[in-house]
Amino acid sequence: MIILTPVKIGICGLGTVGIGTFNVLKRNINKIVYSAGKKIIIEQICACKTLFNKINFINKTNNIFDIVYNHNIDIVVELIGGCNIALKFVIESIKNGKHVVTANKYMIANYGTDIFSLANKKGVIVAFEAAVAGGIPIIKSLREGLVANSIKWLIGILNGTLNYILTSMHNEYKSFKKILLKAKLLGYAEFNHILDIEGIDVAHKLVILASIAYCIPLKIHQIYIEGISKIISDDIIYADKLGYKIKHLGISIINKYGLELRVHPTMIKKTCLISNINDINNAIEIMGDAVGSNFYSGIGAGSEPTASSIISDLINITSYINIKKKISFKDYIEKNIKILSMDNIITAYYLRIIASYPKYDLLSKIFEIFNVNKISIKSIYKKYIISKKLINIIIITNLVKELNMNISINNIELLDNVINSVYIRIGYLNNN
Amino acid sequence: MIILTPVKIGICGLGTVGIGTFNVLKRNINKIVYSAGKKIIIEQICACKTLFNKINFINKTNNIFDIVYNHNIDIVVELIGGCNIALKFVIESIKNGKHVVTANKYMIANYGTDIFSLANKKGVIVAFEAAVAGGIPIIKSLREGLVANSIKWLIGILNGTLNYILTSMHNEYKSFKKILLKAKLLGYAEFNHILDIEGIDVAHKLVILASIAYCIPLKIHQIYIEGISKIISDDIIYADKLGYKIKHLGISIINKYGLELRVHPTMIKKTCLISNINDINNAIEIMGDAVGSNFYSGIGAGSEPTASSIISDLINITSYINIKKKISFKDYIEKNIKILSMDNIITAYYLRIIASYPKYDLLSKIFEIFNVNKISIKSIYKKYIISKKLINIIIITNLVKELNMNISINNIELLDNVINSVYIRIGYLNNN
Repeated sequence: MIILTPVKIGICGLGTVGIGTFNVLKRNINKIVYSAGKKIIIEQICACKTLFNKINFINKTNNIFDIVYNHNIDIVVELIGGCNIALKFVIESIKNGKHVVTANKYMIANYGTDIFSLANKKGVIVAFEAAVAGGIPIIKSLREGLVANSIKWLIGILNGTLNYILTSMHNEYKSFKKILLKAKLLGYAEFNHILDIEGIDVAHKLVILASIAYCIPLKIHQIYIEGISKIISDDIIYADKLGYKIKHLGISIINKYGLELRVHPTMIKKTCLISNINDINNAIEIMGDAVGSNFYSGIGAGSEPTASSIISDLINITSYINIKKKISFKDYIEKNIKILSMDNIITAYYLRIIASYPKYDLLSKIFEIFNVNKISIKSIYKKYIISKKLINIIIITNLVKELNMNISINNIELLDNVINSVYIRIGYLNNN
Repeated sequence: MIILTPVKIGICGLGTVGIGTFNVLKRNINKIVYSAGKKIIIEQICACKTLFNKINFINKTNNIFDIVYNHNIDIVVELIGGCNIALKFVIESIKNGKHVVTANKYMIANYGTDIFSLANKKGVIVAFEAAVAGGIPIIKSLREGLVANSIKWLIGILNGTLNYILTSMHNEYKSFKKILLKAKLLGYAEFNHILDIEGIDVAHKLVILASIAYCIPLKIHQIYIEGISKIISDDIIYADKLGYKIKHLGISIINKYGLELRVHPTMIKKTCLISNINDINNAIEIMGDAVGSNFYSGIGAGSEPTASSIISDLINITSYINIKKKISFKDYIEKNIKILSMDNIITAYYLRIIASYPKYDLLSKIFEIFNVNKISIKSIYKKYIISKKLINIIIITNLVKELNMNISINNIELLDNVINSVYIRIGYLNNN
């Protein structure tokens, strides 16, 4: 085998993923060179000075522009995170003719369209396998492996922290706050965890997957987003009794009216494969018109799983580097797919109504509200006593329109004795 | 987007996969052209005359050489199956400078080394995603997505027919023969089912995956192969009681002595994800040193799932066609990995001994044999009465060396009163 001119890379960022990438590149160098058909050499690393001692490497800098203007570097690896310096680094690198590998879902979801457009102009590749689902090669599978398919729907457990918290709540019946604290101590949840808990991180990943699946532009501002902070252990217990697990899903489903794009907790039957994905694992299920259902799972974050995807991108680019074949986004063929309003979603609901013991027939009032809004009830469960003065009323509906359900819930919450309510959608397809 | 010269293909074979490929290419042509960056045109189709009326297409032939010598054709799709005409067609097509896409695992597993070598000489690509696990893009994921990893082990449910039969035996507790008949009637099992039932089809697929995972030549003759015909519903029932399901697995595990390469029924804990893969679905779990565990599942065969992989290969080749980048096998970097003899495998066992009611202490004789062969017993289960004159003795061992177990079983079968025995290995790693 002929070894051609080596490819030189510059890594920017030396957090856990940066260290992981450095270590895996070093450890598996033989296989990597064999697969790439070329040597891959780390030319320069940029990081805060405090991190310099973490690796044994000479050509270090703390100035991103040393990498941007280094003419020896063919590919930059952006592992800074966030959208300030990272975006500047990526834009300037592209302008200087460098290919880019990044794990930054926040940046791709929010600024991807501009980044890809600039990259196309400059004839360079922007690759981002590591931005979604860590080490699972889901971008490649969706874009290349399932390329022959029209995608009907795609759902995923896309955040390891959320899945860890929900799994622990299922296993230990502890409160959300206690589990979150444990997750932080174990390093699974970041101390600034709002992006995770409120579902925003999942929205970033879902918009990237949907963009590829349906050949549409990135529509981050049109996603419906709900986190898990409203869920309490009562909900977990009732879900369990009813044969469900609560998972936080990113969901995209196409129908004749347009595209559903939504992120929220969902009750999934225990017999479904995806309800068995626990702890920090991620999973994606894709329904293609030819292939049927394809299911992928693995560790969704972490040092070396993410490095695995980054190096896969590096090798991909290395294979193409002399021929300038573009593997970043092309023009979108489907520009006019409408993102559906949540009002039009059809789904079943789990509704828990918290009320003080009523002096009148609360249930008949609730039925009346449902009746007016054309909501049919599948089952009502016993009024579990929380304390002497409070009850939980658990209602499972049949398939209803989200708008009607929202109106009903608003009216129910106005009833005397009703203190509060929590709803969770059931299933992700109309038949669940 | 600039549309370059169209790529022209010739399809040879019009069985279910041929028809599926034709239909999916037609139905999803917009997305396919968008992804390939070129038009893909079917130039000619070769099939038996009796199949001609199945599709509405003009340029048909029943002579494979019309395609081989058709100068307009860039890529041939081999969907003939078997190893006679198919091999001749592929070899002649390569000699005539044509790229090849095939779903033929039998041919790749047995003649792949020669085919790839010839293809490399002629500068053409031989792609075979559809040969393993139908529509799951497992070849691409393993070779490109997980390229950064040293693969520690890879296991899979690789035959839909076997999985359908075992799932039905679990659900219905019916006999193997009855289920097989049903599978044939449903079209899941071929009427000539020996390749499936005896595990040979799984061996073909495993050898292809292992060759990619460990960068070694195809070693079909060094695989240990066991089918499922010895399993009866008693075993399914006992497995179920013990918390296991019986799955037929292809297993490859690398350790410091070499590579385990084996195909056999395996008892898997019900809590494992792979034990929940049912019916005609396939699944593959891969352990990489960086990525950790990656899990893939989907429909493993059938018309359009297989077509999905064939078209993915077609688009891949189309993208590369003007630059002659090779995506078929390269030289193998690991030529000296030793395939381990089954004698050296370490695993736990389920052993069912069928005996007539003994007049002496049969158990103590069995213990003695185990003791001499250094086999430690984890548990013995009640002597379930099959009829008035027969008993089943169910023994679960701790981890033992396969050689010692074989010697023990031979000696046990020589005991008076012992009629027969059936063993099933438990788990695929030493810790199961």
